[in-house]
Amino acid sequence: MSTLLEQLIESLRVLPGVGQKTAQRMAYHLLDREREGGKRLAEMLGVALDSIGHCRQCRDFTETELCAICASASRDRHQLCAVESPSDRLAIEQATGYRGVYFILQGRLSPLDGIGPRELGLDQLAARLAEGEVTELIIATNPTVEGEATAHYLAQLARQHGVRPSRLAHGVPLGGELEYVDRGTLAHAFGGRSDMP
Amino acid sequence: MSTLLEQLIESLRVLPGVGQKTAQRMAYHLLDREREGGKRLAEMLGVALDSIGHCRQCRDFTETELCAICASASRDRHQLCAVESPSDRLAIEQATGYRGVYFILQGRLSPLDGIGPRELGLDQLAARLAEGEVTELIIATNPTVEGEATAHYLAQLARQHGVRPSRLAHGVPLGGELEYVDRGTLAHAFGGRSDMP
Ligand SMILES: [Zn+2]
Ligand SMILES: [Zn+2]
Repeated sequence: MSTLLEQLIESLRVLPGVGQKTAQRMAYHLLDREREGGKRLAEMLGVALDSIGHCRQCRDFTETELCAICASASRDRHQLCAVESPSDRLAIEQATGYRGVYFILQGRLSPLDGIGPRELGLDQLAARLAEGEVTELIIATNPTVEGEATAHYLAQLARQHGVRPSRLAHGVPLGGELEYVDRGTLAHAFGGRSDMP
Repeated sequence: MSTLLEQLIESLRVLPGVGQKTAQRMAYHLLDREREGGKRLAEMLGVALDSIGHCRQCRDFTETELCAICASASRDRHQLCAVESPSDRLAIEQATGYRGVYFILQGRLSPLDGIGPRELGLDQLAARLAEGEVTELIIATNPTVEGEATAHYLAQLARQHGVRPSRLAHGVPLGGELEYVDRGTLAHAFGGRSDMP
């Protein structure tokens, strides 16, 4: 029979990058100095995990039916930017002056892990492209092997619907992850994106 | 008006060593892959922060009146080991074969931060020493400037009550923190503790 403290430490390990030692330090810190903040965290976790789902249009996380960007009247619906994750979406939003909308894949093609077109919502993306409003699909997957494979798949999908696919300019370091690229590089790469051949 | 996701990210920053970027990554990870684990964490946090207090005898964290060590009939009450924190207590418990009991200061003397004998529960420690059951006070504060000052204060307190003060052997690196010392070194230092002059 483990103590509440041990159970708390164990449950903190659900956080990414948090091992036994870090979980222990977190638990002691909360008990010692941050009981109020810890209780707020407990409440927010409960509410957020119950309420946050996916945007009906772009698959980003949101507690409403449409996320703020998809619901906004001031975004340009002719440009659609496909990213792997909400953090990539956020990185582009913060680094560039992009005024179009997004599609969040929530992953990348990875057949060995059982992640195919369906898991990435590509049927939904195809339906969107078929509507005819989108003229450019900006493909901003990560420059990794799987990200590149996903980009090629998306480019094909775009062409099938008469939509011009473009890709971020070289400048994003190869093998890197978009969300860790500095703003300047990302803004440059985004501005200098090229049509995909 | 911030979204639930933004509020969740903000509240995760109450955890030690967690900045904006890490909090964001944690939130996405929970939403994406660990909703069940996240809910369990929310519940555990709520329960633990409400229920965990301090052991009446040793000041360690516990949800009961006495912690498991103080409540145990098999521990030797002649030896009392004073440590700064619950993690130090845990490190000694895991590294050594110590069968005595502990007193957790929950800090170290630091007049500039307003931490004096009262904040460390030294009136309670003095009362314990006065009872006459304790024959050795093993002082295991950290080998930092403040830890050393605390050790000298504790040694004096012990002598006032006719209790023999001892200190961990050299071997614990100077300026280091007990909880980060490897088990072997800690066990060696603990075993080779010397009486304080
Ligand atoms: Zn959306
Ligand atoms: Zn206790």
